[in-house]
Amino acid sequence: MLGNFIYYNPTKLYFGDDAQKHLAEALRPFGKTVMLAYGSGSIKRNGVYDDVMAALKEAGKSVVELSGVMPNPTVEKMEEGVAAVRANNVDFILAVGGGSTIDYAKAVSVAAGYDGDAWRHFWVEQADPAPGQKIVPVGAVLTMAGTGSEMNGGSVITDTATKMKIGKVFGENVMPSFAVLNPRYTFSVPQRQMVAGIFDIMSHIMEQYFSGDDDSTSDYLAEGLMRSVVASSRAAVKDPMNYEARSNIMWSATWALNTLIGKGKTQDWEVHMLGHAISAITDATHGMTLAAVSPAYYRHIMGYALDRFARFAHYVWDIPTEGKSDEQLASEGLFALSDWIKEIGAASGLRELGVTEELIEPIAKATLISDSGYHTLDFAEVVDILKESL
Amino acid sequence: MLGNFIYYNPTKLYFGDDAQKHLAEALRPFGKTVMLAYGSGSIKRNGVYDDVMAALKEAGKSVVELSGVMPNPTVEKMEEGVAAVRANNVDFILAVGGGSTIDYAKAVSVAAGYDGDAWRHFWVEQADPAPGQKIVPVGAVLTMAGTGSEMNGGSVITDTATKMKIGKVFGENVMPSFAVLNPRYTFSVPQRQMVAGIFDIMSHIMEQYFSGDDDSTSDYLAEGLMRSVVASSRAAVKDPMNYEARSNIMWSATWALNTLIGKGKTQDWEVHMLGHAISAITDATHGMTLAAVSPAYYRHIMGYALDRFARFAHYVWDIPTEGKSDEQLASEGLFALSDWIKEIGAASGLRELGVTEELIEPIAKATLISDSGYHTLDFAEVVDILKESL
Repeated sequence: MLGNFIYYNPTKLYFGDDAQKHLAEALRPFGKTVMLAYGSGSIKRNGVYDDVMAALKEAGKSVVELSGVMPNPTVEKMEEGVAAVRANNVDFILAVGGGSTIDYAKAVSVAAGYDGDAWRHFWVEQADPAPGQKIVPVGAVLTMAGTGSEMNGGSVITDTATKMKIGKVFGENVMPSFAVLNPRYTFSVPQRQMVAGIFDIMSHIMEQYFSGDDDSTSDYLAEGLMRSVVASSRAAVKDPMNYEARSNIMWSATWALNTLIGKGKTQDWEVHMLGHAISAITDATHGMTLAAVSPAYYRHIMGYALDRFARFAHYVWDIPTEGKSDEQLASEGLFALSDWIKEIGAASGLRELGVTEELIEPIAKATLISDSGYHTLDFAEVVDILKESL
Repeated sequence: MLGNFIYYNPTKLYFGDDAQKHLAEALRPFGKTVMLAYGSGSIKRNGVYDDVMAALKEAGKSVVELSGVMPNPTVEKMEEGVAAVRANNVDFILAVGGGSTIDYAKAVSVAAGYDGDAWRHFWVEQADPAPGQKIVPVGAVLTMAGTGSEMNGGSVITDTATKMKIGKVFGENVMPSFAVLNPRYTFSVPQRQMVAGIFDIMSHIMEQYFSGDDDSTSDYLAEGLMRSVVASSRAAVKDPMNYEARSNIMWSATWALNTLIGKGKTQDWEVHMLGHAISAITDATHGMTLAAVSPAYYRHIMGYALDRFARFAHYVWDIPTEGKSDEQLASEGLFALSDWIKEIGAASGLRELGVTEELIEPIAKATLISDSGYHTLDFAEVVDILKESL
């Protein structure tokens, strides 16, 4: 059964190998001063920066550049952006990059209109913007597939002082107005980053899928999306220039986390909670942290929902059901997941991400506990899962 | 590979067994005079009319009623609506009903702002509204799941004089601004209509799925959606009051035809072309015409894309692949489709829809030929398929 919900997702998506041709037209309805937010400058080496600047010029915009957005954007960096928006009367923020840059742009877009400690208010206390609060509109040019930030209201920010990494999901008024999705823009992402993005996508789908036991259209869509990600990942790892694979990965990423496949059902984001704690303490790549802990986590909760894990084995990994118990199937499905993690080169354990035994306890302490899945962990279980993931 | 496209679907959906509670709030941003379009009056017997009138009152609207919208809405009825919109300065059209009523509301919303023969211009010549042409905004309260009209720009209109039934797909400015989707509102639909709606959904998915041979995320989503429709249809046919099944069917209908699963790929709408010709000549129920011709049509084109039909058999109908050729699998998949049509009580042949041998030739002549599928039919093939479907 589908629970009650509202679906409203007005982000306009321009998809394809010429998607940037629409950028000037997409920018036109917004005000004159555009803040261009980007990361370390890789967009200057792969031509994306030039494409974007040409579109900004064509649309007659003045540009305020804000570079150096880091993979786990910090509160300090957010404050730098807020100051720049206020000082320049910025009308629009254009994020050019991956999920971190888009998350960052959304954070600045909300924080700039709030008088007070935005980090504490929106992230720690999970408050929503007051009705009427000014929010600077955001657009995105995506250069890395994974987080789905291009079509949702999510924004993950890290406080380096307290080592807290928290995600906030804002409403539709914070979602990007538009996003330019050109799969070729992802070609120059290093293979390790591509793989981390792929696992992030898979994890988004699994974390919505592994909760609830109703018959729900959302779960069937999730199964289809997972099969597409697995098929495309295999092709992309062999040949990162395979446009077919990269275009499917980019599109799957968007639909994995734009609310569709979670509609009307409960969700279990414990793997992301574990991953966020690991990244806050080690600065490890987000997608890799998820890959490192997923097999141990799901094996730990498998017994609480054997039928769902058996379904996962059959409909995602194509494992024949004949003559097998749900328990056998469930176990085989998780072996298939582990094999796939190795096959595509995602992290098979936490040691390769710099986690040592001494860090297990602090990571466990920094892990938020989700209670919406098949089983709610206690602290000892979090420690066990982290140890098993080493 | 995904071809280039734009995805933009700003219809806001209120889904659930209390979805009508949002109706007054959804209506509020629009002007004062609302035209309420509905069909034969069944909404007065099942309580939906009272719910809607209460919301219109709460939102402070004046109401112009336009009833009697028929299952295949005609050009004359459209002209009646246009006259009512103009005479009353209607600000908003609220369609309460199934796909026909919503299609009708969209037709009127565009035709009212056009000076000239709207039928000829928008449907026969497939023109788009000129930029700046006035379009009256539309909203929908859905009482029957099937056509997906609640979240797309499609509008099918029939000219009784020439016996032409033509669909026009308008852009986002004609899509409903919002739709209220309460699965309980579909409970009083007669079982035969429910089944017709279910086959319509399945056909929408198949007609997007059976075209192209690239690896495309859209096809994986289509497979998931088809599996959900099949599972829910079995439960709903046994117990039409099964909320779980009816909610999944309603949600699947929306996503079957809101452009998502067709993005970046070719499509083959020949089954709908055959169905429209049959309905234009016999007034048979739309979904039933599709069920009657689908097995013969797909068996006819199966040989041109054995791998896709084999995939359909395995991933939609769960037929094991071991030791079977693509041809065997493909054939078994189509037998599964035929068995399911019988199981749910959809039309197994054209005779039960009132088609006789003498009508084959006129129906074939009225059938438009699609050239975007695995094989383009000639006239003799259309006749053969219709004969095999008797």
